[in-house]
Amino acid sequence: MSSINRQFVLASRPAGFPQESNFNLIETPIPALKEGEFLVREHYLSLDPYMRGRMNDAKSYAAPVQIGEVMTGGAVGEVLESNHPDFKPGDFATGQFGWQEFAVTDGKGVRKVDPNLAPISTAVGVLGMPGLTAYFGLLDVCDPKPGETVLVSGAAGAVGTLVGQIAKIKGCRTIGIAGVDDKVKYLTEDLGFDAAFNYKTDTNYFARLRELCPNGIDCYFDNVGGEITDAALRLLNLHARVSICGQISQYNLEKPELGPRLLGLLIVTRSKIQGFLVSDYAPRFSEGLQQMAEWIKSGKLKYHENIVEGFENMPRAFIGMLRGENTGKQLVKAV
Amino acid sequence: MSSINRQFVLASRPAGFPQESNFNLIETPIPALKEGEFLVREHYLSLDPYMRGRMNDAKSYAAPVQIGEVMTGGAVGEVLESNHPDFKPGDFATGQFGWQEFAVTDGKGVRKVDPNLAPISTAVGVLGMPGLTAYFGLLDVCDPKPGETVLVSGAAGAVGTLVGQIAKIKGCRTIGIAGVDDKVKYLTEDLGFDAAFNYKTDTNYFARLRELCPNGIDCYFDNVGGEITDAALRLLNLHARVSICGQISQYNLEKPELGPRLLGLLIVTRSKIQGFLVSDYAPRFSEGLQQMAEWIKSGKLKYHENIVEGFENMPRAFIGMLRGENTGKQLVKAV
Repeated sequence: MSSINRQFVLASRPAGFPQESNFNLIETPIPALKEGEFLVREHYLSLDPYMRGRMNDAKSYAAPVQIGEVMTGGAVGEVLESNHPDFKPGDFATGQFGWQEFAVTDGKGVRKVDPNLAPISTAVGVLGMPGLTAYFGLLDVCDPKPGETVLVSGAAGAVGTLVGQIAKIKGCRTIGIAGVDDKVKYLTEDLGFDAAFNYKTDTNYFARLRELCPNGIDCYFDNVGGEITDAALRLLNLHARVSICGQISQYNLEKPELGPRLLGLLIVTRSKIQGFLVSDYAPRFSEGLQQMAEWIKSGKLKYHENIVEGFENMPRAFIGMLRGENTGKQLVKAV
Repeated sequence: MSSINRQFVLASRPAGFPQESNFNLIETPIPALKEGEFLVREHYLSLDPYMRGRMNDAKSYAAPVQIGEVMTGGAVGEVLESNHPDFKPGDFATGQFGWQEFAVTDGKGVRKVDPNLAPISTAVGVLGMPGLTAYFGLLDVCDPKPGETVLVSGAAGAVGTLVGQIAKIKGCRTIGIAGVDDKVKYLTEDLGFDAAFNYKTDTNYFARLRELCPNGIDCYFDNVGGEITDAALRLLNLHARVSICGQISQYNLEKPELGPRLLGLLIVTRSKIQGFLVSDYAPRFSEGLQQMAEWIKSGKLKYHENIVEGFENMPRAFIGMLRGENTGKQLVKAV
């Protein structure tokens, strides 16, 4: 085993859209394990929109990554050495291991993964954070009822693809918004969305949504924000529920954007808008994972992984994900 | 009894702030009662911000008032004649009787008022729609807990004065925002608000709110919207609840206003923003009225009425209310 670890550290904070130069690839020795620690070789590294927020020096729900610090991120890998009673060499585990090839951890927030149940990559996807985000963000925040209309923005991403399928499982009419024609096709032809459109070519969002949601919108699962959300909120039905999962349209703006004031609409429709974080549902994770695994097994839930090979391609894959180049879960395969 | 009814009808739709010329005072004969109808002489007419919305030709939760139609509005008065089994001459009753001196009604949505329990004017105030709005909008939508910080915008109005006092009864730190120094003084010295400020003279809302809410904001009861709400949302605590009751800052704009996009904040704090209408709580009105009456009786809840004499002064009193000239409930006394 190599005793050298390759890591991506934050080199500088982006102004607007991140560049590869915002990251530095460095080599450091793997530290010796202390009592209670174990060493993981990361196989699949997860790339997620929330990481963009960690690159800013702004107060949020988690601390920013500091300049020179290893980028934060989830991954799944194999335990190589262990001074920890619960993790043995040969075990697979997932946790916030960071953008590096090897991680030393004390096991806090780390979960064992059974490679016989599902491919280990799913531990950072459909059977991990994005899957749980879709599950709780839709079912707990929106509570969709059969026959209701559910709209999903960022519908072709790791979370959106799952939200739409869960909505279908619950008997809803499901509409997706994505930014590539092939994604739109994938949503309707492969995942069973009732309709979808490409927001980059079909830019009269209100007209398009009114056409695709003739009975209005009961639940809106928002990954995107901005003008798409402006249009969606104007079509909310009485007692509609809006789940704010992400606002990716806003993350890379150099200057905050202005938009129409829409809170008055909430009075007219007696609707709610609620932000959530999957981590708040930690006590219910096992319920969510069990249900998602069951749906996968019974063929009701499909997932797609967009895998880039090579640890050194982390920044490029991250930027591609922010640009919407992926369909489904964006991963980097390091091993 | 006069057989002539004076009525204010909508003469034209306002562009921006309403003018007295948007209303016409007309005289019409009082129609003869049909079977099941009764005649009410309106004593106190209610003036409320929502009426501004009814003057627009826009889809909302209620139909717009048509040009030439009597303005909509609540009132309380005495039954003069009746062909209705449940209402007798001499009874007092409250309902959506409109801007007129006499109303003929079939009793739908009309409630009898006991003049021995409280002054009849309270039936359109603290023991009527504004009281119930404060009660359910705060307790049901925000569900404030002892020790939490509750912020109220439009705090010196019919609803706001009650919201702040109910929050105090529930053991909260209560902060009010109003637009006149005397109102600010009234809130803190007479109604027991912990702090308040004048948004017209103290215009750095964020700095002022941060100072007055050192522990952040757990519940925000919003009657106003606009820049005040922009600032308040930036100070929300984890799992904060925002109740959107009104957005009076936006009702008289000739052109919709733009504002910062703030939905991303809801993710950081996992907060919700919910619009509501008091009418949705109709099945629980008696619970609310009983509790409000009890608090008044025990001296825990005070109310203030701003009474303008003379039916002919309805438009002027309405415009004054929109300008924030009233403290507490704005009424016109017609008899």
